[in-house]
Amino acid sequence: MTGPTRVVVVGADAAGMSSAHQALRTARRTGRELEVTVLDKGTHTSYSACGIPYWMAGDVGSGDDLVARTAGQHREAGIDLRMGVEVVSTDLEARTVTTDTGEVVEFDELVVATGAPAVVPDWALRPDGTTYDGVGTVKTLDDGAAWADRLAAAGDGAHVVIVGAGYIGVEVAEAALRQGFGVTVLTRGRGMSMLEDEMSDLVNVALCDAGAEVVLGVEVTGLVLDGDRVTGVRWDGGTREADLVVVAIGVRPATAFLEGTGIELTEGGALRPDPHGRVAEHVWSAGDCCEVRRRLDDQWVFRPLGTYANKHGRALGDSLAGGTLSFDGMVDTAITRFSVGEVHLEMARTGLSRKDAEAAGHDPVALVTEGRTASGYMPEAEPIALWVMADRTTRRLLGVQVVGGHGAGKRIDAAAAVLWAGGTVDDLAWMDLAYAPPFATAWEVLQVAARRVAERL
Amino acid sequence: MTGPTRVVVVGADAAGMSSAHQALRTARRTGRELEVTVLDKGTHTSYSACGIPYWMAGDVGSGDDLVARTAGQHREAGIDLRMGVEVVSTDLEARTVTTDTGEVVEFDELVVATGAPAVVPDWALRPDGTTYDGVGTVKTLDDGAAWADRLAAAGDGAHVVIVGAGYIGVEVAEAALRQGFGVTVLTRGRGMSMLEDEMSDLVNVALCDAGAEVVLGVEVTGLVLDGDRVTGVRWDGGTREADLVVVAIGVRPATAFLEGTGIELTEGGALRPDPHGRVAEHVWSAGDCCEVRRRLDDQWVFRPLGTYANKHGRALGDSLAGGTLSFDGMVDTAITRFSVGEVHLEMARTGLSRKDAEAAGHDPVALVTEGRTASGYMPEAEPIALWVMADRTTRRLLGVQVVGGHGAGKRIDAAAAVLWAGGTVDDLAWMDLAYAPPFATAWEVLQVAARRVAERL
Repeated sequence: MTGPTRVVVVGADAAGMSSAHQALRTARRTGRELEVTVLDKGTHTSYSACGIPYWMAGDVGSGDDLVARTAGQHREAGIDLRMGVEVVSTDLEARTVTTDTGEVVEFDELVVATGAPAVVPDWALRPDGTTYDGVGTVKTLDDGAAWADRLAAAGDGAHVVIVGAGYIGVEVAEAALRQGFGVTVLTRGRGMSMLEDEMSDLVNVALCDAGAEVVLGVEVTGLVLDGDRVTGVRWDGGTREADLVVVAIGVRPATAFLEGTGIELTEGGALRPDPHGRVAEHVWSAGDCCEVRRRLDDQWVFRPLGTYANKHGRALGDSLAGGTLSFDGMVDTAITRFSVGEVHLEMARTGLSRKDAEAAGHDPVALVTEGRTASGYMPEAEPIALWVMADRTTRRLLGVQVVGGHGAGKRIDAAAAVLWAGGTVDDLAWMDLAYAPPFATAWEVLQVAARRVAERL
Repeated sequence: MTGPTRVVVVGADAAGMSSAHQALRTARRTGRELEVTVLDKGTHTSYSACGIPYWMAGDVGSGDDLVARTAGQHREAGIDLRMGVEVVSTDLEARTVTTDTGEVVEFDELVVATGAPAVVPDWALRPDGTTYDGVGTVKTLDDGAAWADRLAAAGDGAHVVIVGAGYIGVEVAEAALRQGFGVTVLTRGRGMSMLEDEMSDLVNVALCDAGAEVVLGVEVTGLVLDGDRVTGVRWDGGTREADLVVVAIGVRPATAFLEGTGIELTEGGALRPDPHGRVAEHVWSAGDCCEVRRRLDDQWVFRPLGTYANKHGRALGDSLAGGTLSFDGMVDTAITRFSVGEVHLEMARTGLSRKDAEAAGHDPVALVTEGRTASGYMPEAEPIALWVMADRTTRRLLGVQVVGGHGAGKRIDAAAAVLWAGGTVDDLAWMDLAYAPPFATAWEVLQVAARRVAERL
């Protein structure tokens, strides 16, 4: 092959731009010559979708603050970045992608980093494919801008109905409550399904304590409309008045442009790249359009999180340019909070759920332990509840979940580290975690919780 | 042997009472019959010495709040607890200890849990062995009560000189500043010697920012006195006026009563029990009168911390009663903070210092990385600096230190978990730590710091 390797990256957010920059960095070391083109159908690069609820809450002044690196900064680093260009199909034999304007772009290596747009149910859409007035998702910076406008325009006493009680649902509930709106959270499950029921119940209580209405176990089937404007949501047997409706029921990989290429997609449309990001010959992928491998049970799961996109993207870019970095899976760690006035709850998880553990053939023993985030005599002490699960036979730590006040959430990291290392519940109970009165009880609560489980194995 | 095993525990704080209670718990399981007597020369059981600075700061209302379990509660659990009884000598052959009143107490098993009283230099002492007026240490609840009285009686503008810039020195500086006093910290070193210089310098800056005077590199040689009352401290070439003087230069194991028994003590007077707490036949020990084994370099070090006392005490009690629990050393984790008004600094360490690492034959590579505790666009984001050290050849993580704002300190736990497992700097860089905008940057700063070191190996 003569001339530089033509790398075409589709998608200019976390995974795509991590790949692109790392590829260029590694290429300088390995002496490879790369020509990196990035195509993105949107208008913003490298932005924090996770930050949008905090923009809605008023913590963040503008969408620009959520942009980690602008298009200009990417171009200065030598990347041919082309925004507003949607790739609609792929020909692996010809090694070309075709854009929405019919342009054909050749590649030597293709990086699929198209992410996962929000799922919008039919009931939220007008015949022209746009959402009804007052209805929207929370994914892109354009979504964020629309919400900033809608919330600013909403009158006193406006009521926001949030459909979905996952991370985004709870974060948007915080935002709307802090902005003084009435809030209803509607979910078909019990809420926060990434937590065990004992733990997610605590989140529901906090939502109620902060003045939200929580409706569990209902599936929204439609909107109540006044012309094109929403005035309520409807489910089988009930309705709830609403001025604004946030749809936060999940995301789906944007992989339609790979149809017909023979590249295998999951039922949900996701890719399953190897630790270096390889999907097929000359095709690579990372980020929200992929599933990730959970090390604990060797299962592929769909976890569209920025941390995985960044890490896998980096390994991909390095490998593509001749390096050896790899993304060796994850242990299913996540965190968020719900913080409104006096109500402050941090919630985090790592590892398997009880259901996951049973499916993997474990004999799980799990217990909830209550304690304090700091020594009881300190003003910093706040309640914390921990769910710890271990295998009865091997004593391996299987999962930990935390719900509690200030300082509770990031405690999950120590448990995630034990899981990463394949450690036991005894490791967690006996290891050397930091103690001083403002930070922990003399027996760190994470270790008390582990000890209690260890004693029951 | 007929009748119950007579266990005599000397010392009724963390290690002693953990041992006693665990021994009784385990004995119920193993069917052993134990008769547990605890002798303590003091007036308070199971109190948090670590909490005394916060009592001085006004966070804690009274000494009683620092007592985890009262004498009455211990007795209710079936322990024959005798306070105000000092053990002055031991006869291992006769299996007896003798008290200060000449009473001889027989034992089958002896548990040494006498802790480590504060070191008081001669210059602080009157001929009768008490400290001069306005001068004291910070170790016992009686010390705490004396300080509460002294601080309450001190007039506006009183000046507190703290001799020693370790954990207690810095915590007392916080307390005195928060109470509105002038503060000088004097130390013979560079301050906070448990941190590398790059990190301890940040603490010195914070002390100054909060209005303290910091005098490094001076060894206090005496007091300036007005009769029995202190009016200043003196060092070679200088003096500093003072209304109150806090002596916080360390502690020393209380093991004099073992003299002549043949039990080996370190130069500093400490014991080195095995993971089950065994010191010699029928003699056990745990807590501040012991050194602890650092797993990373298999060195014994003197770290009089409550967490080790609790853990080792528990293993001891269990083993004494026929169980198998063991305290398998530590990785040298510690944390504290300095928080005065707008100045809030959390500092923590785990693992080896550069000096330790070199002494152990490592080829250490260390870097300081600066970042934020939360996503840059969040109001929660505060500066954080991390020092990460790894071995050039094996890539093993060797040590991590953290200094930063709210949420910085407990980040050390994830690093401590990696050290506990014997992991590499790559494990720290790639493992699955929790991210959401209020809690971390998308690349968690601990992982950025690890990555930077990994790239330089």
